[in-house]
Amino acid sequence: MKVGVLGATGNVGQRFVQLLEGHPWFEIGALTASSTSAGKEYSEAAAWALPDEMPESVANKTVRETGTDAVGDDVELVFSALPSSVANDVEPEFAGEGYIVASNAGWARMEDDVPLVIPEINPDHLGLLEVQRDERGWEGGIIKNPNCSAITMTPTLAALHPLGLDEVTVATLQAVSGAGYMGVTSMEILDNVLPYIGSEEWKMESEPRKILGEFDGARVEDADVNISASCNRVPTVDGHLENVWCRFDDDVGADDAKEAMRSFTTLDLPTAPDQTVLVREENDRPQPRLDRNAGGGMSIVAGRVRDDGDARLKYSCLSHNTVRGAAGASVLNAELVAERYL
Amino acid sequence: MKVGVLGATGNVGQRFVQLLEGHPWFEIGALTASSTSAGKEYSEAAAWALPDEMPESVANKTVRETGTDAVGDDVELVFSALPSSVANDVEPEFAGEGYIVASNAGWARMEDDVPLVIPEINPDHLGLLEVQRDERGWEGGIIKNPNCSAITMTPTLAALHPLGLDEVTVATLQAVSGAGYMGVTSMEILDNVLPYIGSEEWKMESEPRKILGEFDGARVEDADVNISASCNRVPTVDGHLENVWCRFDDDVGADDAKEAMRSFTTLDLPTAPDQTVLVREENDRPQPRLDRNAGGGMSIVAGRVRDDGDARLKYSCLSHNTVRGAAGASVLNAELVAERYL
Amino acid sequence: MKVGVLGATGNVGQRFVQLLEGHPWFEIGALTASSTSAGKEYSEAAAWALPDEMPESVANKTVRETGTDAVGDDVELVFSALPSSVANDVEPEFAGEGYIVASNAGWARMEDDVPLVIPEINPDHLGLLEVQRDERGWEGGIIKNPNCSAITMTPTLAALHPLGLDEVTVATLQAVSGAGYMGVTSMEILDNVLPYIGSEEWKMESEPRKILGEFDGARVEDADVNISASCNRVPTVDGHLENVWCRFDDDVGADDAKEAMRSFTTLDLPTAPDQTVLVREENDRPQPRLDRNAGGGMSIVAGRVRDDGDARLKYSCLSHNTVRGAAGASVLNAELVAERYL
Amino acid sequence: MKVGVLGATGNVGQRFVQLLEGHPWFEIGALTASSTSAGKEYSEAAAWALPDEMPESVANKTVRETGTDAVGDDVELVFSALPSSVANDVEPEFAGEGYIVASNAGWARMEDDVPLVIPEINPDHLGLLEVQRDERGWEGGIIKNPNCSAITMTPTLAALHPLGLDEVTVATLQAVSGAGYMGVTSMEILDNVLPYIGSEEWKMESEPRKILGEFDGARVEDADVNISASCNRVPTVDGHLENVWCRFDDDVGADDAKEAMRSFTTLDLPTAPDQTVLVREENDRPQPRLDRNAGGGMSIVAGRVRDDGDARLKYSCLSHNTVRGAAGASVLNAELVAERYL
Repeated sequence: MKVGVLGATGNVGQRFVQLLEGHPWFEIGALTASSTSAGKEYSEAAAWALPDEMPESVANKTVRETGTDAVGDDVELVFSALPSSVANDVEPEFAGEGYIVASNAGWARMEDDVPLVIPEINPDHLGLLEVQRDERGWEGGIIKNPNCSAITMTPTLAALHPLGLDEVTVATLQAVSGAGYMGVTSMEILDNVLPYIGSEEWKMESEPRKILGEFDGARVEDADVNISASCNRVPTVDGHLENVWCRFDDDVGADDAKEAMRSFTTLDLPTAPDQTVLVREENDRPQPRLDRNAGGGMSIVAGRVRDDGDARLKYSCLSHNTVRGAAGASVLNAELVAERYL
Repeated sequence: MKVGVLGATGNVGQRFVQLLEGHPWFEIGALTASSTSAGKEYSEAAAWALPDEMPESVANKTVRETGTDAVGDDVELVFSALPSSVANDVEPEFAGEGYIVASNAGWARMEDDVPLVIPEINPDHLGLLEVQRDERGWEGGIIKNPNCSAITMTPTLAALHPLGLDEVTVATLQAVSGAGYMGVTSMEILDNVLPYIGSEEWKMESEPRKILGEFDGARVEDADVNISASCNRVPTVDGHLENVWCRFDDDVGADDAKEAMRSFTTLDLPTAPDQTVLVREENDRPQPRLDRNAGGGMSIVAGRVRDDGDARLKYSCLSHNTVRGAAGASVLNAELVAERYL
Repeated sequence: MKVGVLGATGNVGQRFVQLLEGHPWFEIGALTASSTSAGKEYSEAAAWALPDEMPESVANKTVRETGTDAVGDDVELVFSALPSSVANDVEPEFAGEGYIVASNAGWARMEDDVPLVIPEINPDHLGLLEVQRDERGWEGGIIKNPNCSAITMTPTLAALHPLGLDEVTVATLQAVSGAGYMGVTSMEILDNVLPYIGSEEWKMESEPRKILGEFDGARVEDADVNISASCNRVPTVDGHLENVWCRFDDDVGADDAKEAMRSFTTLDLPTAPDQTVLVREENDRPQPRLDRNAGGGMSIVAGRVRDDGDARLKYSCLSHNTVRGAAGASVLNAELVAERYL
Repeated sequence: MKVGVLGATGNVGQRFVQLLEGHPWFEIGALTASSTSAGKEYSEAAAWALPDEMPESVANKTVRETGTDAVGDDVELVFSALPSSVANDVEPEFAGEGYIVASNAGWARMEDDVPLVIPEINPDHLGLLEVQRDERGWEGGIIKNPNCSAITMTPTLAALHPLGLDEVTVATLQAVSGAGYMGVTSMEILDNVLPYIGSEEWKMESEPRKILGEFDGARVEDADVNISASCNRVPTVDGHLENVWCRFDDDVGADDAKEAMRSFTTLDLPTAPDQTVLVREENDRPQPRLDRNAGGGMSIVAGRVRDDGDARLKYSCLSHNTVRGAAGASVLNAELVAERYL
């Protein structure tokens, strides 16, 4: 199946290109970017900044200016690595013309008829695509993955939700790549921590409630879990680490929590990891540099799961923020759509 | 007044030497270290690793092997920068021989007759020195300051305690200097975070309860505040940053909380800062590199004080972990003792 | 004497403000910046990013838009922290209206009638101000300090020049602050080195030749020293470290070289350090974090001075790139002008 | 062919284990370490610190105490990741008992009868194994790879040597992993550079002369190339970057130099990269984080090859210091031996 990558030259766009190289189902049929890059070969347009080489198969592909014209008729599905400000114009156009848009952009994630999906957790929310088509008169549709910081903890919360999860407190230690290539200057972060990331806390406090919510065929009822987040940027390149405290209706032991995480749903999709949540027993794990590549960057790594008094637990978790937290999340969503609908 | 510095060649010992240079009350009369350094000049024995030059006044002083013999009769008070494993032998010897020991070492902090003091918060706990002398038959006594991570948040908790503080959740982002010069290797921390610091969480969960506790003339009754901590090491040199969530008996507004912090007790002692807790209004402060030197490294800097639902608040706070969090804390304790007892 | 600071809100501008606080001769009479900042108080216009607090004396001063109107008649001398692209319009205007401009901007450094000065090395080049006035019809004049990377090694070269210095090879390890606050992104430099800094090598290869050159009352004849540089950006905040190889006409011993550096000219000006070149004997010095503040950030620190075969030496040297390498260099130049001409 | 790994639990030992996983010729038959680890499973004995998971095939293997007893009769070849102080006792024992020892340890590299080999450069030096056996009465033999900093530039020098290379000046910017897991503390390197690495400069100045030397069947005559090095440690995890200046007998153009590097010998061995020296044209490459994995970590990446006056060139080069610079170098040496002798 031919796919397009919108916003292919940026940080997340490059991850899309990397993850789609050698993909068993998808083949890149179109690469788009802003007008500055249009007409150039990808190798010239993209300042490739990943540690592994740019795949040869895309190096000579011509980048086109983002728009439905840029993508041929043989493409059914496009990935969006566009910035939100551009995405909210462009993505509806694509959906209107019949494309499935697997989008990493922040805009519209919380809109009622937009599925916000982590395939292992709420694949049934894809049903919202029908609602979306009805309401908006689209032939295609838009499916979103959560923000990189939300995606890190949500699979662990999903594992614990059936145990009576009531309240979540979370502190994040986020890598600089989450802000994009130009997002954080070196003067801001060397020998330093930034105790604030614009709108990140709101995303962490709202997105998981929707993902854990129940879809009744027409709309999603948010899960009744209260979340309070405090978000920090730290001097690491990749890998968001999070300290999580959970309060339950009743006592939940650390062993039960670990068992719930370990036995959480896995999927048989090309980009899905063998273990959705990988629980480590060492005191000093997970660590960004050592654990961000677990499961090809698609596993959530949890550790230090421990009791914290009456009906409370605490633990840490980590994911690769530009793989599971961005491009990989969209690719997995696309695989889910492809398997079920296309 | 002549003072001694025990363990003067290490990381914290060097900070003692730096802070005592030009001190209006104290003058260094003795420097001690392990037998390896004994007999050498301080400039030779100490691998000086602070950004400012070693004070000339100490460079030629001879370092003696740690022990009561090493300190002359003209010294009344000694500072201890010893590792706990050594301190628990040495400090009682000094106390037994009549010295006041202002100690940064972890051992004995939670013992019933040992005052654990932050002068702006619980100066009355110094009364435990009497209890200590009675029970142990000492002529001198030992006074402790809290661990660097506990000391960062405790002044803010002390400001909020009268508002009905009930429960505290805290995540720390601690600098590498807190582990001592050899404590964290570069391979462990470059492009990485360590989500665990041995016994640190226990210290954060117990020490503030004692400091906020009530002294009835005989013993301290711990404050009834539940604390849960998750401690992380991040790649910063100096400055511990902490994300704090507080739950109160009743609603407390962010403005009231800030007012309580801003108006918290200040002391008229040489090392005490003008502002014990300095509250900033910018969204992105406090930051370790920019705020750790506030008040000469002795102010706690708080920021992002914000409402967090029913009877809850959250904020971040920061201190210089080797000044307010270690050597400066001991010096301030010594000043308190000197002012009141000597 | 009242002075103005042009471009006062940026990285180097803030260093000017910091260094001028409490200056015995100069008092800030005007602060200018781009139109965005005009009309705001300095505390609001400048995103203060230095570890020490913004001086209270400037916090409430109103920032004016850069231009000669912004500076009152009581000001004789202005410091320029402007970017080169702006400076080459603005600085001539100020000089034309009679102001002395002590400029850190790169433009015009190599022009024949512009003095490029390090006060301890070539104070006589100030005589070019007369030439400049004659040729350009200005009542004031422009005096430049060298680029931060050139300024680090040039005092050591000046010390060695009389020994028959012939050829210099130099590799730099430069801190990120040298590129300005927005100059280097975190994605570029975390866990990385950039082996290229635009136009930096050319500056290092040409500026020292002019500074070491001879002024005959009309023009400067460049010194006959061949220089080859390779410039790198490393993940440090402040402090440029440089590895230098020198080839001489005849054998020069390391001890003679050290003696020449240690006995190099010092000046009795407020910002001049006691020791222009501070030579350390330890194998592992100078280090950016430990040595950048030597002499208040105004000393060059040299180390590892060692023989390197026939008529060759090698050593390392370091300076604080935003103090001695930028704002401090301009202030020292202004002090020289003030002492001799004003 | 079964192989053993001596010192398998450390930093370089782990790289050996990683590189041997799935190797087409070699299979790990024995893992050894110090007595502390003896008897434990590898997964327990080794604090695995590489970003990719420990290979499952070794996790349950029992680690034995280093010694010839620890390695079965079915093993012909052992890799040594031992520290030099241990290696100089152990490696001769193994060689004496008939094993080929492919060693990364520093000791004996410069001894007359020990081949110091980079397979693409001086495979004929393997002939020294015969000399070694004759002189020492060994049935096996020891083959060494150079130090990580020397190995980075030597292939580029080998490419330029036939063009009349006369003199080399080199500054290194070396990653912390080169010093071993415990080698550099975080306090030493965060926001800092260390301008000295013990004995590293001597290695860089002597090893390439031997590798480029001529073997006449009995001994190696060092190449007549003068080398002067200045070595620095920078805050990067992996990847040594070097600035090189070359002086030739006659003029050599940058294009000729690049052509010589690009066309340098490649080998058809499993661990040999397709391109021994990969020359990049971008101004700002090579960079450690982006280029260290080129050719599976086995390519040298060169860049900024440029003219530098009469008969002089300068450029930068980089290699992965624990792959091409350590474990990978030994594995490649072993492949060469296996192909030609076993």
